[in-house]
Amino acid sequence: MKKVLPIVHVLGLVTMLFSLTMLAPLMVSWGLKDGAVSAYDESVAVTFISGLIAWAGTNRFKRELKIRDGFLLVVLIWSSLAAFATIPLLVQIPDLSFTDAYFETVSGLTTTGATVLSDLDKLPPSINFWRTELVWLGGMGLIVLAVAVLPLLGIGGRQLYKAETPGPMKDSQLTPRITETAKGLWLVYAAITLACILSLRAAGMTWLDAVMHAFSTMGLGGFSSHDASFGYFNSPSIEAVTIVFMLIAGINFATHFMVWRGKSFAPYRRDPEAGLFLGVTLTSVLGIALYLWQMGVYPDFLTALRFASFNTVSIATTTGFATTDFNQWPIFAPLWMLFLSSFASSSGSTGGGIKMIRAQLLYKQVYREMKKLLHPDGVVLTKLGGQVIPNKIIYAVLAFLFIYVASIVSMTLVLTASGLDVISSFSAVVACINNTGPGLNQVGPATTFAVLTDFQTWVCTFAMLLGRLELFTLLIVFTPAFWRK
Amino acid sequence: MKKVLPIVHVLGLVTMLFSLTMLAPLMVSWGLKDGAVSAYDESVAVTFISGLIAWAGTNRFKRELKIRDGFLLVVLIWSSLAAFATIPLLVQIPDLSFTDAYFETVSGLTTTGATVLSDLDKLPPSINFWRTELVWLGGMGLIVLAVAVLPLLGIGGRQLYKAETPGPMKDSQLTPRITETAKGLWLVYAAITLACILSLRAAGMTWLDAVMHAFSTMGLGGFSSHDASFGYFNSPSIEAVTIVFMLIAGINFATHFMVWRGKSFAPYRRDPEAGLFLGVTLTSVLGIALYLWQMGVYPDFLTALRFASFNTVSIATTTGFATTDFNQWPIFAPLWMLFLSSFASSSGSTGGGIKMIRAQLLYKQVYREMKKLLHPDGVVLTKLGGQVIPNKIIYAVLAFLFIYVASIVSMTLVLTASGLDVISSFSAVVACINNTGPGLNQVGPATTFAVLTDFQTWVCTFAMLLGRLELFTLLIVFTPAFWRK
Ligand SMILES: [K+]
Ligand SMILES: [K+]
Repeated sequence: MKKVLPIVHVLGLVTMLFSLTMLAPLMVSWGLKDGAVSAYDESVAVTFISGLIAWAGTNRFKRELKIRDGFLLVVLIWSSLAAFATIPLLVQIPDLSFTDAYFETVSGLTTTGATVLSDLDKLPPSINFWRTELVWLGGMGLIVLAVAVLPLLGIGGRQLYKAETPGPMKDSQLTPRITETAKGLWLVYAAITLACILSLRAAGMTWLDAVMHAFSTMGLGGFSSHDASFGYFNSPSIEAVTIVFMLIAGINFATHFMVWRGKSFAPYRRDPEAGLFLGVTLTSVLGIALYLWQMGVYPDFLTALRFASFNTVSIATTTGFATTDFNQWPIFAPLWMLFLSSFASSSGSTGGGIKMIRAQLLYKQVYREMKKLLHPDGVVLTKLGGQVIPNKIIYAVLAFLFIYVASIVSMTLVLTASGLDVISSFSAVVACINNTGPGLNQVGPATTFAVLTDFQTWVCTFAMLLGRLELFTLLIVFTPAFWRK
Repeated sequence: MKKVLPIVHVLGLVTMLFSLTMLAPLMVSWGLKDGAVSAYDESVAVTFISGLIAWAGTNRFKRELKIRDGFLLVVLIWSSLAAFATIPLLVQIPDLSFTDAYFETVSGLTTTGATVLSDLDKLPPSINFWRTELVWLGGMGLIVLAVAVLPLLGIGGRQLYKAETPGPMKDSQLTPRITETAKGLWLVYAAITLACILSLRAAGMTWLDAVMHAFSTMGLGGFSSHDASFGYFNSPSIEAVTIVFMLIAGINFATHFMVWRGKSFAPYRRDPEAGLFLGVTLTSVLGIALYLWQMGVYPDFLTALRFASFNTVSIATTTGFATTDFNQWPIFAPLWMLFLSSFASSSGSTGGGIKMIRAQLLYKQVYREMKKLLHPDGVVLTKLGGQVIPNKIIYAVLAFLFIYVASIVSMTLVLTASGLDVISSFSAVVACINNTGPGLNQVGPATTFAVLTDFQTWVCTFAMLLGRLELFTLLIVFTPAFWRK
């Protein structure tokens, strides 16, 4: 208990800050007179006071946090903020269970974008605003987490090439530098979001829709204010704009930051992930467009290209928007998209999955093993971007892959044991652990996760948190070793 | 070319020896007068003469083989013997394409047991004999490969705890010792097979069926002479005998050998895999029996236990016999069985999958990574059976897992792209790469692999060889580095 209280102290502070973010939907509700104001009054009050109690009540246990405390703090932040975030939903949507509300807010904060809600178009606009704001906040928290915090905990793809990154990341430590870095990243994230809002507005969205969908795009979240998602707009220019910003958000924000600071595009070229991410994604777009055209899903290549590009980029970047029910496509296409979502996006982006850098390292490690078989006594090094990768990092990545696969297999088995069909089970787990959003079959883009039982919903909620917290951060908290002195 | 010829020399010798194994079905055919004698005449002649030409023609290139040559030799032996083995099938079964015949013989030699043939009961008995003999030979070749040859090539689970194995394995080298070891293993394999034949006969099979099913059981192959597989016998005592021998064959034959040599059961206790293999398999039997009973698939627990035990042990050990169409069970049960097949059986057994020892190491490695996160500066070692496992072995195992997963994912994608449904695609790949046999849906236990197109059949054939040759052995031959000077 002594161990947890200093962490609760910090959590209390974060909770108080989080209550302030509820003022935004409050203002939206007030401005649009959508009748939901009281919901935010309540939630701001409850959240702020809870945070205050937690903070003040643990004041005398305040101490500097150790690396070890960081794991629990991160887990508690994500899981408890999501709990507070349910309040407006529970107040405004009658018959919504806590299980479903919590799934929805975890889905937002983890930028998964899977939803249990339907009739989105009839909800008070401020509720949809709140949902997409959660995605945006989750995306921002995530970037800071991935770029500044997780590497210090010895986790995350970012640390892999910290050594070779010029500029602000070089010797970041848990010191004022981190605040500075986080601030820079926040600025870049906000600036690109603003550009996205303006572009979406110019492409024809209303201001409110532009803000909400920009939030959802930048966090690679996938929440929409319309049941038909982007199908609602049916606008090639809106789709084009969104594709561009999804691709931008799939690149490491530290790289964007360096481009912005240095006023040069060189960091994009030096980024070991960006080129591959774009290459793999755009090649897949072309391949899927050809495939859909060939299979006769669309009468002409251009239509196939339009649908393939939006939906493939959306799933590959783990965004989860849809302009059509791609579950109806020949199964190879959605499977390939699901496959892309598991590794295409960059570390330090708002995307999910194992990240491109881990995929690269895994590939190189396999090649290295083969070389070692041919030259048993030779020394073979694994290099990335001209740098030798230390063995302990390759270990960590390989162990990461194992947990990732083991998690997918075991949660799929659990879901099938609870009565869900195989494709729905597997795709739900993959879509949740990669923080993508829509799966296939019963949880496909044309339906919602509301079909799941409470038990199945909790499994998916766990999967979303597991993926978002890079597996280890969450799992380590459940090991006996963590709680031992 | 100079590089390949000395290997072809050895291959020629092995091919000549292999032609002699065709004398067995010839004698069966002759004894039973099933009218297939000429098929074996032809195949013995063609195979022997081909081997002779390859051997004699390359005599002047004869030299001692290097470790590197071993990879190619192993790949060539498995793939070309399977080609010669098709001759009796092609002669005796009209309308059988080479693609399908080759699938069938690869399935036999890799002890997979997936079949493209139906109306097995109407085939000449000697053809079924030949099919099951292939399984038995494949199983024997496999044991020698896994226990004596692959470790020298730096591959395979066996090497993992070579250091701690007392007795004959201790300092085996590619010297007379290997011959001795191989001979010992061969004797044990033959002796247990004999026991299996006698037990099956005692349990009520005809002599011919007893021999064929003992061959198929000991190789954990799964070929039967009946379309209904073990459902044909509908005999609890035959099922019980078969379960026992499948479990025996799922244990490392080097351990059996040591038990036999030392006249003590102690090696079973020291074997780091045997206990876990039996524990996991038997616990699963009980769990699945309860599940099937609970779900109302069988009216009483004992019937559920009977069907669960035979089919679960059969799939977990990668045998592939069936007493019922378990594809009709609630999907969790067959999925769990498929999952077991991927890791339950021991290295050095005739089973497939990644093997129990790799699963153990992967689990331990993950726990080690977690500990390292909590104690970044501490040294954490991975131990198995009291021995510290060197890092390079953990590396190799992790890389193995990656190739295994990547192979399953990519071949599943290829099969879906070719038009097969997801569950059939995935289960076919898993059943083939684990050398289990039946999959689900279209390739389930009630059907055959004949529904596949030629292209899909070749993908499955490749998957069987890939799994059987422990991935690396086959893949390395396709790398440019292998062919470079
Ligand atoms: K998403
Ligand atoms: K088999």
